[in-house]
Amino acid sequence: MSVTAPAGFRAAGVPAGIKASGARDLALIVNDGPRHTAAGVFTTNKVKAAPVLWSQQVLQERSLRAVVLNSGGANACTGPEGFQDTHATAEKVAEVLGVGAIDVAVCSTGLIGERLPMPAVVSGVDSAAAALADTEAAGTDAATAVLTTDSKAKQALATGNGWSVGGFAKGAGMLAPNMATMLSVLTTDAVVAPETLDAALRAATRTTFDRLDVDGGTSTNDTVLLLASGASGVEPTADELTEVLTAVSTDLVRQLQGDAEGATKAVDITVRGARTEDDAVHIGRIIAEDNLVKTALFGSDPNWGRIAMALGRAKAEIDVDRVEIITNDVSLFAGGLPNRDRGEADLTGRDIRIVVDLHLGDQTATILSTDLSHDYVEENSAYSS
Amino acid sequence: MSVTAPAGFRAAGVPAGIKASGARDLALIVNDGPRHTAAGVFTTNKVKAAPVLWSQQVLQERSLRAVVLNSGGANACTGPEGFQDTHATAEKVAEVLGVGAIDVAVCSTGLIGERLPMPAVVSGVDSAAAALADTEAAGTDAATAVLTTDSKAKQALATGNGWSVGGFAKGAGMLAPNMATMLSVLTTDAVVAPETLDAALRAATRTTFDRLDVDGGTSTNDTVLLLASGASGVEPTADELTEVLTAVSTDLVRQLQGDAEGATKAVDITVRGARTEDDAVHIGRIIAEDNLVKTALFGSDPNWGRIAMALGRAKAEIDVDRVEIITNDVSLFAGGLPNRDRGEADLTGRDIRIVVDLHLGDQTATILSTDLSHDYVEENSAYSS
Repeated sequence: MSVTAPAGFRAAGVPAGIKASGARDLALIVNDGPRHTAAGVFTTNKVKAAPVLWSQQVLQERSLRAVVLNSGGANACTGPEGFQDTHATAEKVAEVLGVGAIDVAVCSTGLIGERLPMPAVVSGVDSAAAALADTEAAGTDAATAVLTTDSKAKQALATGNGWSVGGFAKGAGMLAPNMATMLSVLTTDAVVAPETLDAALRAATRTTFDRLDVDGGTSTNDTVLLLASGASGVEPTADELTEVLTAVSTDLVRQLQGDAEGATKAVDITVRGARTEDDAVHIGRIIAEDNLVKTALFGSDPNWGRIAMALGRAKAEIDVDRVEIITNDVSLFAGGLPNRDRGEADLTGRDIRIVVDLHLGDQTATILSTDLSHDYVEENSAYSS
Repeated sequence: MSVTAPAGFRAAGVPAGIKASGARDLALIVNDGPRHTAAGVFTTNKVKAAPVLWSQQVLQERSLRAVVLNSGGANACTGPEGFQDTHATAEKVAEVLGVGAIDVAVCSTGLIGERLPMPAVVSGVDSAAAALADTEAAGTDAATAVLTTDSKAKQALATGNGWSVGGFAKGAGMLAPNMATMLSVLTTDAVVAPETLDAALRAATRTTFDRLDVDGGTSTNDTVLLLASGASGVEPTADELTEVLTAVSTDLVRQLQGDAEGATKAVDITVRGARTEDDAVHIGRIIAEDNLVKTALFGSDPNWGRIAMALGRAKAEIDVDRVEIITNDVSLFAGGLPNRDRGEADLTGRDIRIVVDLHLGDQTATILSTDLSHDYVEENSAYSS
């Protein structure tokens, strides 16, 4: 159930003293090979943290020996000195492992705009290197060391025929959510060509991490990395790899949705009958990010009028007389008219399913989201994060 | 200070029994001429309420004798029957005033998806017609009858040389905010050609109502109407009219910002140094709508990192190394680096000024917004609206 489950990987997560709390805050994942193929997907935010700029650069070689991650500081908006800190961190890992800095990706998460305490990071790399192990406990330590406001570690594992994909994630989403950073490291012992690995990661993230949308936006640090050791000796087809990667990513995204800051509801918004998949995704996001929809859901109120209003803002084709809005399997609006009393839809449980059928085409997409609760406001206003 | 201040207008606001509370819920504004020039700006939402569809249609003649407005029901997503209700309301007003239905615009605000209680509306029109007066009190009654979650009536007046513009508004914003509907009626006794009136209204709303952004989006019912009686006999230039209209609209928008649901802060977001005004508006909106920025402001936290993250999501040119972020006159981020300790910016007061200087050009725009508070969540989750 962790990044150490596939053969060829060791991990560690240690308290390096970056966080004042003394909690684990530095993780190291090492790919012992025989192959070191790697791929990455990064934030689309124009303001990119130093570790993102670094990792994008080293990944041009499509090869990684190790990933070092820290919580307790995002190292974003820290200028050339912040980039130097990332570089120095990679150099330190390279030195300890006897590889090149270009073989080491770096991820950071925490408050924007503050420099990392580099002595703590450097000594933390030594501690982590000493603690490296291929055990499940070591993988869990790594998954724990990257947490910020998360309440628990998020790990997943799925197996192919003689090979597997493991991984962990923290935060709440890629490309869309901006509730702190979303970081994920995935590992596989499959034998995969670099181009295939890259394509499979993009295909898997497109329908999983990219469709989690808690409050719009994307952070300065969002990163998903995939390392392939080839240690199983098995070379799956591209489709097989994409399928297993998608299963692991889906599992992680569900855990992120379930643990989103202050959320009291897990809301799945499916837009179907769209002309294009892009339209379906766009409309799903508009609804997912609408604060009036989100607060109504917090109140367990099947206020489909707010959903109609939100989808009317979409930059996509819509014919309101064809639209159908269904909440928890009860159709409330269809043919341009209220369909049934809203009271017939019971949204009091934690899981809410919203379906919007545009009746214009055959494309569909589901966005995973949450409600907007008092706890969300509290957690995001009471202290800096 | 009301729609009755300019010569040639009468108004009324009565309790028609549409709202269960028995509060005033139906307003009537009559233009007694001699001219009946009119212009309107409507929601860009693809899901348009029946009164919006009706009023857009009758305004093709650029002439109005009266506007009837109701709170207690948006008459949106109510199908052909809902449109019939709007039509019947206009017919009733036309009959009472001895004009044509095509001379009567209709505005509604309230819950989406429910039919209006037409007997109450129809008898309310009779009561309103009987109460029509050109007094300030009558104008205030009309301004009061359109309120929903607003805590008070919002009215404004500005004068030209021998003519004036009066008006009221309710709700929280045009084109951007979706906290219930934004409705506004403006009146002037200036003599204005139809094309000039239309152009002046568009110019004024573009920099006022269109730049209030409380929580993104736009409602199904948002409408701004402008009626010109010509009763002053004075014909201002297009620029003079635009200037006075802009003054009244700015005043109303400030009142809407100040009374937004649950807001504890009035937040002005100025983006300057942009290549284009559109870029400045777009970036201002991205920041205004970011829940992490909004919750930080609720907590009086000058968390400029969240502002940097938000603006990095903009679909506009940005060079993070040139960006400067200033909160309440304290520059916190510049040249790609933290500039000063965030503690130096005091955001504990109600008014917060955020300035983002892109240092790329000479265009600027200011978006008026609010924070995201517990009261916002409470007001929007505790009951349907």
